[in-house]
Amino acid sequence: MPSQLRALYFEDGVLSLLDQRLLPAQEVWLGLSTSDHVVEAIREMAVRGAPAIGVAAAYGMVLAVQNGEDWKVARDKLAGSRPTAVNLFWALDRLDKLTDKSVESVLAEAKAIEQEDLAMNHKIGEFGESLVPENATILTICNTGSLATSGHGTALGIIRTAHTQGKVKHVYSCETRPRQQGLRLTAYELMHDQIPFHSIADSAAASLMAAGKIDFVVAGADRIAANGDTANKIGTLMLAVLANHYNIPFVIAAPSSTLDPSLPDGSHIPIEERHSSELTHAEELQIAPEGTPVFNPGFDVTPGTLITAIVTENGINRQPYGFK
Amino acid sequence: MPSQLRALYFEDGVLSLLDQRLLPAQEVWLGLSTSDHVVEAIREMAVRGAPAIGVAAAYGMVLAVQNGEDWKVARDKLAGSRPTAVNLFWALDRLDKLTDKSVESVLAEAKAIEQEDLAMNHKIGEFGESLVPENATILTICNTGSLATSGHGTALGIIRTAHTQGKVKHVYSCETRPRQQGLRLTAYELMHDQIPFHSIADSAAASLMAAGKIDFVVAGADRIAANGDTANKIGTLMLAVLANHYNIPFVIAAPSSTLDPSLPDGSHIPIEERHSSELTHAEELQIAPEGTPVFNPGFDVTPGTLITAIVTENGINRQPYGFK
Repeated sequence: MPSQLRALYFEDGVLSLLDQRLLPAQEVWLGLSTSDHVVEAIREMAVRGAPAIGVAAAYGMVLAVQNGEDWKVARDKLAGSRPTAVNLFWALDRLDKLTDKSVESVLAEAKAIEQEDLAMNHKIGEFGESLVPENATILTICNTGSLATSGHGTALGIIRTAHTQGKVKHVYSCETRPRQQGLRLTAYELMHDQIPFHSIADSAAASLMAAGKIDFVVAGADRIAANGDTANKIGTLMLAVLANHYNIPFVIAAPSSTLDPSLPDGSHIPIEERHSSELTHAEELQIAPEGTPVFNPGFDVTPGTLITAIVTENGINRQPYGFK
Repeated sequence: MPSQLRALYFEDGVLSLLDQRLLPAQEVWLGLSTSDHVVEAIREMAVRGAPAIGVAAAYGMVLAVQNGEDWKVARDKLAGSRPTAVNLFWALDRLDKLTDKSVESVLAEAKAIEQEDLAMNHKIGEFGESLVPENATILTICNTGSLATSGHGTALGIIRTAHTQGKVKHVYSCETRPRQQGLRLTAYELMHDQIPFHSIADSAAASLMAAGKIDFVVAGADRIAANGDTANKIGTLMLAVLANHYNIPFVIAAPSSTLDPSLPDGSHIPIEERHSSELTHAEELQIAPEGTPVFNPGFDVTPGTLITAIVTENGINRQPYGFK
């Protein structure tokens, strides 16, 4: 268990990044000194979580400028590292708009992006906490905490704030197949904060809801269209449909950098399909028969109509969303 | 890939049982010669699948009589090996009713149970096939094929029969966490039969349904109460709620030995909770942080009201079920 939960920090011209593929077994920090290193770290998911990806990409541009790399080449490679989370493009767009593209200026903007993300998460926590019932048992998916953001977290940030207010009785944390970010990372963060919880298989969520054991469901987001349709980790749509069936509030938490009002609805969000080995293997261990064909989408899209509220740092949004 | 898919066979006084925990990596046959061996094989899931468990337990009693073990002691140990699947108790009850409890008589009854199960599965396949639309893409969960029964299978038996009739365009097979019977065993059987398929994470089922890619959902059962409430592998309830939301037929397939009309509804079905290591580890590999608390129910209960039809060897049953 690290003394401090954080995904990355930039110091002395190097981006230090906690390799989340190795957690919780090993705490290995990667020292990245080129934008290509950052592209690879994002693509291979050493860093993940939409807000953290945005911050990492911003620091990737700092490295590019430091090294005298071509701005556009570095920018386009970083933009191509993962397709679904919009925070990546949002961060790069912010840097594109700088008139002064010196190391000092780009570094200052990257640090601002990081610090603003942390501040936004605390605001999200405060707004979201108001939606959490007293003595709540909360269900969540994937990792949306300090490891997915600049700190505190989005959905897990709401859980953290609500826990501080004494409102959290228990958390159920979905494993989040195939990469098990819930089982590996959210468990790690919940244990760190001493928030009482159980990890469950994703498929066990329905039986908990049917038994009346879940009061509140909260998840993060990778991209939110104008109408509130929300792309997030595969399995989020399942939770939304179940919560709807069992009349349980289903809340999305994300900074406004996750909004993409240029898209009218979720059908326009590109959904990344990832490698079959994420399902067929556990590290080197082969689980499935050799040659098993796999369909492995990394995300799904939850219709805004199934979402009780979308919480950003600006407040609580409800249907009809109409983000601008 | 074995030339023949079967879970077990009894020959020369020994129960040979394919150790399904090691599939698909290794094909190891266990030779069991005492009822205690069979108890352990059922409990540790070397053999699994409600109908196959029933057959294994019947042969366990043959071993008990062969060895001069006390009938009631052996019977009670076998009955205590797993709590949810009712086929186990059904098979033992059948043997209890024998007036002649000689080896020959018990063996003949155990063989009858096995052969009847195979015949029932083919009948289930025929009845169930009539419900499958032409050119269907079918979603299923867990393993309900030759490895879970005396052959052919229940839900997978319907897929097999429909495939033979040229009605199956594609199958999506849920991984089935935590033990991954879908990813390991159903993939193995589908490849064996050359039925086109993809394995998916359980949590990806919702996005396939939302995209209109699923025409028919079929699952097995471990116990069915009088009102049609059905206990089956954890995740089945999730599929039923999703299928209901997306207006997709959701069908349960099981031999009549899975019916338990003594229970008015599913709230009376005991649900086995299994060891946390099923979720936290992949063989020796530890995935979750040390000490992660886990809630790991092996089964869930799908209300009869969410089930389009329950297919047994006797025909197609629809709401209101009222099994007697």
